[in-house]
Parts: sequence; structure tokens; C-alpha cells
Amino acid sequence: MSSENKKVAVIGLGSMGMGIAQSLLRDGFKVIGCDVNADALARFRQAGGATAGRPSDIDPDCQIVVCVVVSAVQAEDVLFGPEGIAATLQSGALFIACSTVSPDFAVHTAERLASQGVLYLDAPISGGAVKAAAGKLSIMASGSAQAFAKAKGVTDAIAEKLYRVGEEVGQGSSMKMINQLLAGVHIATAAEAMALATKVGLNAGMVYEVISNSAGNSWMFENRVPHILAGDYKPHSAISIFLKDLGIVLSTANSQRFPVPLAAAAHQLFTMAASAGMADWDDAAVVKVYERLSDITLP
Amino acid sequence: MSSENKKVAVIGLGSMGMGIAQSLLRDGFKVIGCDVNADALARFRQAGGATAGRPSDIDPDCQIVVCVVVSAVQAEDVLFGPEGIAATLQSGALFIACSTVSPDFAVHTAERLASQGVLYLDAPISGGAVKAAAGKLSIMASGSAQAFAKAKGVTDAIAEKLYRVGEEVGQGSSMKMINQLLAGVHIATAAEAMALATKVGLNAGMVYEVISNSAGNSWMFENRVPHILAGDYKPHSAISIFLKDLGIVLSTANSQRFPVPLAAAAHQLFTMAASAGMADWDDAAVVKVYERLSDITLP
Repeated sequence: MSSENKKVAVIGLGSMGMGIAQSLLRDGFKVIGCDVNADALARFRQAGGATAGRPSDIDPDCQIVVCVVVSAVQAEDVLFGPEGIAATLQSGALFIACSTVSPDFAVHTAERLASQGVLYLDAPISGGAVKAAAGKLSIMASGSAQAFAKAKGVTDAIAEKLYRVGEEVGQGSSMKMINQLLAGVHIATAAEAMALATKVGLNAGMVYEVISNSAGNSWMFENRVPHILAGDYKPHSAISIFLKDLGIVLSTANSQRFPVPLAAAAHQLFTMAASAGMADWDDAAVVKVYERLSDITLP
Repeated sequence: MSSENKKVAVIGLGSMGMGIAQSLLRDGFKVIGCDVNADALARFRQAGGATAGRPSDIDPDCQIVVCVVVSAVQAEDVLFGPEGIAATLQSGALFIACSTVSPDFAVHTAERLASQGVLYLDAPISGGAVKAAAGKLSIMASGSAQAFAKAKGVTDAIAEKLYRVGEEVGQGSSMKMINQLLAGVHIATAAEAMALATKVGLNAGMVYEVISNSAGNSWMFENRVPHILAGDYKPHSAISIFLKDLGIVLSTANSQRFPVPLAAAAHQLFTMAASAGMADWDDAAVVKVYERLSDITLP
């Protein structure tokens, strides 16, 4: 790998981005971390990284940018806002887009960057903060062979599994959207099931034991119901994330005039939770919607 | 075990009942199989069992009856219909109720049998035909210690896992209802996800590979999506089953005035599939609802 590809900027040092940035450091990359949060920057300097407070402050000879911000709005700002990095990205540079965004946004953004010769890897991630820190994420990526080739050192360092979903930008984001449709509905269904089980007088711990060994199980049921059993809603992943991601499902399906009644019902449940003041709570708190609407008492 | 407990009637020789009856034979029980289907009876005689065409024909000294019919209506008929077995069941006999029925039906039926001294084990089963044939079902059971004790030889022979959900009849059926809520919503969500994935141009096989290794996975996604990929809807478990079982969820929740918006949305999707003539197709055929309503072409 040429030395220019060993210098990487990571924009967005939240739980996922910090893990990615540290995995890159561990793998011998020179990493410039960028975030609006001064504490995150200080922690990353302690870990041995360089930092920049604004995307526009990132050294223009940096050829690879990994973007791990929360939303399309933030990604847009990182690139094209007043302090954005797009203006200084050189032709031949690579933008690795890890945020969960709509396929349309990915396509549109890639086109804008292509006009200045910048490559785009549509590379949503999955796996959570622990796997991010361990360099063991899953990446659902699409893009040109050239983009994949230039990204290889980075994806090797941060991911355990790299799914090459296709050659067209948008396919990676489409795959992530499908995953989030399932994940979001499964979290809301786990909540509905635990709420009804409580209503009919079943022991919640027993329900978890039986269901997690039965055909009603899901990855999300197994992972989130322990939060309900513990009554612990400090956010691992917040209600607001699935409100956004199921929103992407709905807007994409709507633009194609395609029906998604289950995703729509789940989106309403996350909307109810956010409306009730729980947007920043753990997503398992969607079960609290059922509690507020009934006489059940959860742990 | 006393010899009286080695004689068992199995009523309902469908794919589950036949497996149960054969597992009991293998374990040294004298088994009387009962079904309205003459072919099923002939096959069971070939396997070494005794048979009865009507529940009322079963030898009155048979102390244990395992009921594996499809619905509450059939279970009611097996017991209290014109050719029912309740009239000849002796005090101290045991009725093991394996059908998926509402908790209320289980409670009411147990009360009627208790009035003539017959024990009731509320014992819904899970695992499918293959596990039934292997004697490796899961049973979610509730009932008195006396009922569990008398059932022990039978449950040992037919089940790998016996969950003792509680001492009250109804709790076993409640647990199965919660499992079916999750399983039914997960099947419909797998269908919705595969349909939308097809609409946005993703490769269906690739979606299966990525999702079954990601946080969007569920037991049902992993098990049913291969039917969609193969375009094979010969019934392993039919649309009509989940129409019935989500109906139990809705009627139970409704009787308690408890909201179940996701179960209700999934129930409507199975209703649409049945309305479109697919009641006897495999439950994965719920994906065909999306195909009929759009321009997608499934495998």
C-alpha cells in the first residue's frame, strides 16, 4: 500500500467513529480525528491520534476520509457546509460513507463528489460500539472496483466482514435500509410481546428464556429484552436512531410507491416513544409506550 | 411408571401428531392413534400402532390422551362433540392439550374436565414436523404438579425441552401465544423486507446472506426466506395457521383492552394472503401480497 493510503481522516468520533479511529491507529495508520466535541478530540489525542475541530482543518493531502456521523444532514454538512471538506478534497481521494442514509442521498452525494474526481464508497456499518472498538464491524458496501481497492487497507483494519453488495453506490445503503427495517420492527415487536406477556401475567424472565430458545426469537429480541428485564434504558442505541432509520425506509418506499405497513406501524411506535420524551433513551424503551397506555408495570 | 401410564391415545395424526405418536411407540408405549383421515390411520397401523376412527372409540381404560388437533374448534369436538371422548374419560385420567388455543379456551376446557376428575396439562408444542418425528419437540406447559407427574413418561418421550411455565392452566397457552405473536410478525416482516429489497434492485440471495449474519436476523427470517428464494410455497406451515394464531393474539389482547398494533398489522397481511386464495400455501407466501400489489417479480 502506498504511504498516502496510510493517512486517514475519521470524521465523527462518537461510539462507532472512535472505535474505527482507534482500530486504524492500532493498524499503523496516521489518523486525524475530527469532531465538534472537544472531549472526544482530547480522548483521541490521548490515544495517539491527531485531531481537527473542523472538517476544513483536515490536511488537504489526506487521501481517505471515513465519515461516521449520525445522519444525512450531518454528512451533508461535513462535505458541503461552510466548514466542509469537499472544497479541499483532491481528485483521486476517497470518501468512505459509513452513516445510515437513504440510497438516494448516497447516489446524489457520490455524483457531486465524482464531479471533482473524488471516489465514493457507500459503506454503512453494523455491529455496535464493542465491535467497532475491536476492528470487527460488518460493512455492507457498494461502489466501483477502484473505490474498493483504495479502501482495502481501511476496511481490513476496521471490519471483520466486508459484504460487497454491488458496484453501484446506493446498493450498500439499500442493504442497510433493509437491515434496519427488520431490526426496527423486531425491537418494537419484542416490546409488544413483552408488554402483552406482562399483561396476561407471565413471568418476564421466563418469557425471555423460552422465546430466546424458540421460533419467535430474533437477534434484537435476544439483545434488547435484557434491557427491559433490567429496567435499564440508558442508551446503547437511542429511540431517535430508529425513528430516523425507519423514516428512511418509509421515505424510500413512499418515493417508489411501495407499501411497508409493518415498518410504518413500527415507525409510529418509535414516534410515540419520542413524543413521550424518550427520544434519547435506549430503543428498548419503546416498550414504555405500552406501559403508559395500560396498567402494566414493567421491571 | 405404572403400566396404565404406558397406554396413550394420540388424537390428530397430522404432521405433528404422527411424529408424537411414533415417538411414543418407539419409547415402548401402547399407542392408539385417532384421526378422521383413513390414510393417516393406515400409516400408523403400519408403524405398529393401534387405531380408532372416532375419539369415542378409544378404549375407556386409556388413562392419558394427547390431543394434537389444529384448533380450539376441533379440540372442543374431540372432547365434547357427538363422538367426543370426554364422556368416557375416567376420573384421574389426563388430557394433554397440545393445540395452539387461546388461554381462555384452555382455562374453560380444563374446568369442564376437572368437574369429572380429569387432569389437564396446557401443553402447546413448538419445533415442527422433523422435531416431532424425532421426539425432540419443545413444550411450553402449565398445570398442576399432579398433571406434570402423570405426563412425565409422555413428555420425556416426545420433547427435548419441557418448559414448566407455571401451575395454572392458561399460562402455557399464553406463552405459546407470545411466541406466535413474534413468529407471525417476523414472517410478515421478512416478507416485507424481501419485497422492498427486490423493489430497490438488491439481489435476493445476497440480502439473505447479509441479513442472516446481521442484527436484522430472526429465526423466522433464516427459516422462511429460503422458501421465497426457491419460489417454493408448498406448505410446511400454512398461511391459515398464522391467520388463526394471530387471531388468538388479537382476540386475547382485545378482551383485555390491550393494544397490539404490530400483531394487528401482520394479521391483516395474512388475511390479505388468505383473501387472495393462498390460505393453504406456505406462510412465506405472505410475500406474494406485496408482489400482487406492485411490479416486483419474485423468484
